Amino acid sequence: MSRIIAHYRLRCPAAEVQARARAIAVEQSVEMPLEGIRAARVLAEIVGEVRAIEPLGEEQFRVSIGLASETVGGDPAQLLNMLFGNVSLLDWVTLEDATLPDELLAAFAGPRHGIAGLRARVGAPRRALACSALKPQGLPPAELADLAQELALGGLDYLKDDHGLADQAYSPFARRVPAIAHAVARASQLSGQPTAYVPSLSGSLDVMRQQVRIAREEGLTTLLIAPLTAGVATLAQLSSEHPEMAFLAHPSLGGAARLAPPLLFGRLFRLFGADATIFPNHGGRFGYSATTCRAVAQAARAPWAAVRPCLPVPAGGMTRARVTEMLEFYGPDCMLLIGGNLLAAAEGPRAAAAAFVAGLRAYRFQAASATLPAEPLP
Amino acid sequence: MSRIIAHYRLRCPAAEVQARARAIAVEQSVEMPLEGIRAARVLAEIVGEVRAIEPLGEEQFRVSIGLASETVGGDPAQLLNMLFGNVSLLDWVTLEDATLPDELLAAFAGPRHGIAGLRARVGAPRRALACSALKPQGLPPAELADLAQELALGGLDYLKDDHGLADQAYSPFARRVPAIAHAVARASQLSGQPTAYVPSLSGSLDVMRQQVRIAREEGLTTLLIAPLTAGVATLAQLSSEHPEMAFLAHPSLGGAARLAPPLLFGRLFRLFGADATIFPNHGGRFGYSATTCRAVAQAARAPWAAVRPCLPVPAGGMTRARVTEMLEFYGPDCMLLIGGNLLAAAEGPRAAAAAFVAGLRAYRFQAASATLPAEPLP
Repeated sequence: MSRIIAHYRLRCPAAEVQARARAIAVEQSVEMPLEGIRAARVLAEIVGEVRAIEPLGEEQFRVSIGLASETVGGDPAQLLNMLFGNVSLLDWVTLEDATLPDELLAAFAGPRHGIAGLRARVGAPRRALACSALKPQGLPPAELADLAQELALGGLDYLKDDHGLADQAYSPFARRVPAIAHAVARASQLSGQPTAYVPSLSGSLDVMRQQVRIAREEGLTTLLIAPLTAGVATLAQLSSEHPEMAFLAHPSLGGAARLAPPLLFGRLFRLFGADATIFPNHGGRFGYSATTCRAVAQAARAPWAAVRPCLPVPAGGMTRARVTEMLEFYGPDCMLLIGGNLLAAAEGPRAAAAAFVAGLRAYRFQAASATLPAEPLP
Repeated sequence: MSRIIAHYRLRCPAAEVQARARAIAVEQSVEMPLEGIRAARVLAEIVGEVRAIEPLGEEQFRVSIGLASETVGGDPAQLLNMLFGNVSLLDWVTLEDATLPDELLAAFAGPRHGIAGLRARVGAPRRALACSALKPQGLPPAELADLAQELALGGLDYLKDDHGLADQAYSPFARRVPAIAHAVARASQLSGQPTAYVPSLSGSLDVMRQQVRIAREEGLTTLLIAPLTAGVATLAQLSSEHPEMAFLAHPSLGGAARLAPPLLFGRLFRLFGADATIFPNHGGRFGYSATTCRAVAQAARAPWAAVRPCLPVPAGGMTRARVTEMLEFYGPDCMLLIGGNLLAAAEGPRAAAAAFVAGLRAYRFQAASATLPAEPLP
């Protein structure tokens, strides 16, 4: 039977690493003393196996554990559970990466549209994409619609709701989304650049379904979801029942567990159906390193069995001044997301959005240097 | 307008704490530069407010931020999002606690059954309850049913699925749960002690609904759910549409350090509808302190507006040898969960379960000392 290989980083004395590695292998599989297991099949095929232990520095080790693929049962939440459910409660363990066998990958649909689909929606087959965020929460629908129109007139490719825009009494989804969709459609006609408005889904799966229906009635084709607050199975379910819709994943709550960002925001969100994945870029409001960000982008878009590539969306305090540097770093297969910096610009959101878009479009990628190495994911 | 008060612990130089506190207040509310906000109402009522900054030690501060209740819109996932969504990505911030105004509490149902309901199901109005876990995953339904019967014959109050039992090909929910339910019902008749079998829900909300239907057809009335892998709104939705069912929350993916366990496993899971909450007891396989565990139990069961108390379920490597000490520590309003220690016992699971139950029932609580102080939650 095939095995997932989960790679953990352990912080512990060298004398304890063997025992701790075995403890994790048990914790993340049968979760009971092996002497209590009489079934030979369970001992041979289900109990986790320590595959490798490598020192990484003082009292730091990389431990690779083989976990039975068949324990996942094709469920995204159960995959998270098997990879990191109980050991998330141990403060000396982080989940660094996971190698998923093809048979397991085949149980998940991955992005339905991916990078190519997101480009096609806005008629931009090659260049990087420009995105902004609609905020602040607290505004009534008409004011959000006015602001959306201004931003869209700047020629953005995508305009997403702030993830704080939910279904609040002062701005209910059912009134807000049609108002903004109309405003953005109007702006797209005027600017000649199709801007795709991306509303944020919230609530239970049922509530999200109603929200998807409203979005579809407005002709929208891309939606924002935060898989960790919504539940990862909720993303997979919506993606499965609305194959015409593309999904942009938000990292909300993603740092609460010690789960490596490239694995969570790149690989797992991609596997569960995210067509694009937002993550904090280095040098912004969050402390991610350039190395981490490069790894997130690599995990999101590198070749990976039959799983379509997912568009990396670096964000979190980005500014127009950083457009060139970000394009150099990420290459053309990315979407830059600049929110507050446009909204607070002295020249107003429309002019700021236009300057952002102009900077992005003017950039010429160096053929050889701009893209990340596209090594397939293991 | 009412405010949630969220209490964060910041690790930063003293010279920076004011600015960082303000940054969190903005990040967790409007998420944009304030100079870009023209609406007076948003500035006055929606932007987060720094309410207090207290030093906690060297480069450690407790920062209290007021967040507008109306941003939550009655959605559990959005409450998590507002409390910790983006700042979860900052490694110098932990969420320590949150004070939720009554008007916000009223938007959530809390436990439908709570401690009293869980006691009533098993005819134990006053004493602590005894629970075990059915494992290992990997066994086929018939073998799990045999094992469940043995454990139930020991006279347990509750027998829950291991949270790794999902909907796997070797043991699908639809075959596993009826087989186990029958075995446990048979054992209950023989032992004279009603043992409630608690199957573990997995998959999307729709899949869980089918699973609830199967459980109900088998006469089961209590279900296990991991709110962080399922999505917290999934728990609230199931609890709302199945008010006859009690829900036992599992801490999978809960993380060790960044989101305080008393808040997450005690207060928030309770608010979203968990009738009982499992958490790692001190001195077991996980590194929680006694102080943390006491605080989890306090958050789960202390008086809290109209929210029913939730039963604390300390677990994670517990043994029969610790029953007395745990009862002394938690008092009678708890359920002790001992899994592997019964399954691996030399005398077999039935005799081990019986010894566990006998020890628990023999314990006599000291009237004054045994229960935690029942101060209401703020």
